Amino acid sequence: MELWFTEEWLPGLKLSVRVKSIVFSKKTRFQELAIYDTEQLGRILTLDNVIQTAEKDEYIYHESLVHVPLFAHPRPENVLIIGGGDGGSLRETVKHPEVKEAVLVDIDGDVIEASKAYLPGWNKGFSDHRARVIVGDGLAFVREAQNQYDVVIVDSTDPVGSGEGLFTDEFYTSIARVLRPGGLLAAQTENPLIMPEIVRGIYRRIAGAFPVAKLYTAPVPTYPGGWWSFTCASLGPDPEVPQRKPEGAWDLRYYSPEVHERAFVLSPGIKRDVTQEGR
Amino acid sequence: MELWFTEEWLPGLKLSVRVKSIVFSKKTRFQELAIYDTEQLGRILTLDNVIQTAEKDEYIYHESLVHVPLFAHPRPENVLIIGGGDGGSLRETVKHPEVKEAVLVDIDGDVIEASKAYLPGWNKGFSDHRARVIVGDGLAFVREAQNQYDVVIVDSTDPVGSGEGLFTDEFYTSIARVLRPGGLLAAQTENPLIMPEIVRGIYRRIAGAFPVAKLYTAPVPTYPGGWWSFTCASLGPDPEVPQRKPEGAWDLRYYSPEVHERAFVLSPGIKRDVTQEGR
Repeated sequence: MELWFTEEWLPGLKLSVRVKSIVFSKKTRFQELAIYDTEQLGRILTLDNVIQTAEKDEYIYHESLVHVPLFAHPRPENVLIIGGGDGGSLRETVKHPEVKEAVLVDIDGDVIEASKAYLPGWNKGFSDHRARVIVGDGLAFVREAQNQYDVVIVDSTDPVGSGEGLFTDEFYTSIARVLRPGGLLAAQTENPLIMPEIVRGIYRRIAGAFPVAKLYTAPVPTYPGGWWSFTCASLGPDPEVPQRKPEGAWDLRYYSPEVHERAFVLSPGIKRDVTQEGR
Repeated sequence: MELWFTEEWLPGLKLSVRVKSIVFSKKTRFQELAIYDTEQLGRILTLDNVIQTAEKDEYIYHESLVHVPLFAHPRPENVLIIGGGDGGSLRETVKHPEVKEAVLVDIDGDVIEASKAYLPGWNKGFSDHRARVIVGDGLAFVREAQNQYDVVIVDSTDPVGSGEGLFTDEFYTSIARVLRPGGLLAAQTENPLIMPEIVRGIYRRIAGAFPVAKLYTAPVPTYPGGWWSFTCASLGPDPEVPQRKPEGAWDLRYYSPEVHERAFVLSPGIKRDVTQEGR
């Protein structure tokens, strides 16, 4: 039997990966969830036939999304993760000894349960005593939140379907409200090379809700076009400047203070097409 | 009619792009050459069913491969390009007013002729009065070369088939011999994330032939894994430090002096798996 998983990155552009075995699949309340083992990408989790996370490169995505805002903050004690049900962002967050509480809010409890059962590489953070997991809608959560946070991480799906509310003005404004003075937001913001209009739209909405918003990038082979952008917005500290350093025992494979600073250097084309600096 | 071009990136990993029209195809003396127009990647040129260059992102590849060594050299007057029959590297090379002669040696004259006929975005350098085009084997050329060069650019296919000789110790040693004192080499050296062993092997061979060799990277969505490495080796100047700046009229979309320096910052994983720094 030869089985291939194929994802349409854009109309007329597809990635296909050969599947060794189907680990788990379920139609949840919100989406089609599947976990496959593949030859080239290791274990992958898909939602509605889109790869959300892959063993091969999830460390690049999660280390970039989490450690940039956490290290740009001098003392991140309370962290809120919206989405991220696979657990990768939580796993990286609880590496910081400064963190006293990490709240994860994902709309789909089945993703969290699947991670606990089938994603040993991702799910270690769930058992940390500082982790608090809430199954619920991220937009509603930040709209109603009374607590305050030092860092908010938006680890969402693409801006279609159930993830759409996590790319709205209202969402970003609500996040700015639940952040303490000097707080930071980091969000995944899609591929600036192959979908610059989409990234420009998201970046503008975030920049409209915060005094400072900066785009940064990292290679993620399993995401469309193999390269990904994130936006780090701030009520205070410069997102580009790490305030602290990881410890050697964390065994990071992508993040370093030098990589942190490098990630914010944008090409002339991205500045022109996406962030529109100098206009 | 629905036509798809599919490339096997690795066994079990494929990229597919929908083809609008077949512009040209020919079985040359060395390889199967084809040029397609596609919806998402624009015009693409393939050799033996591998995308060599795509309108969508060729500027990132060519600006990275050419401007890093040329700007790291204080006064590059004589430049040798091995491979690069599509013309993109030559187009970038002749933007430098310091260049007095740019010699391009590609083994397959049919690629050069196809570029002149069908790749208007790539072929402008061929008509520059400083360009000299030689159809011949790059390895034999550098083995026998009497002239000397300030910069050698290796714009090869992958290390299989006709491109294999352009990844050997003998080739790199010959290049070091044809460089003037203070000369630089830059070569495309494959994807360090999805084929680290291959990149490590190439990097080691280059590093064995030069006093200084540094890996640098850029996102190239149409190449396997969407991210690419280059190696810049030097007989003198530090490859990381730009000595001059591009002029605004060049209208570069990827390269800038900041991007040049950023490109050499490597993640802990790449240092461990590929360049093995600190060992």
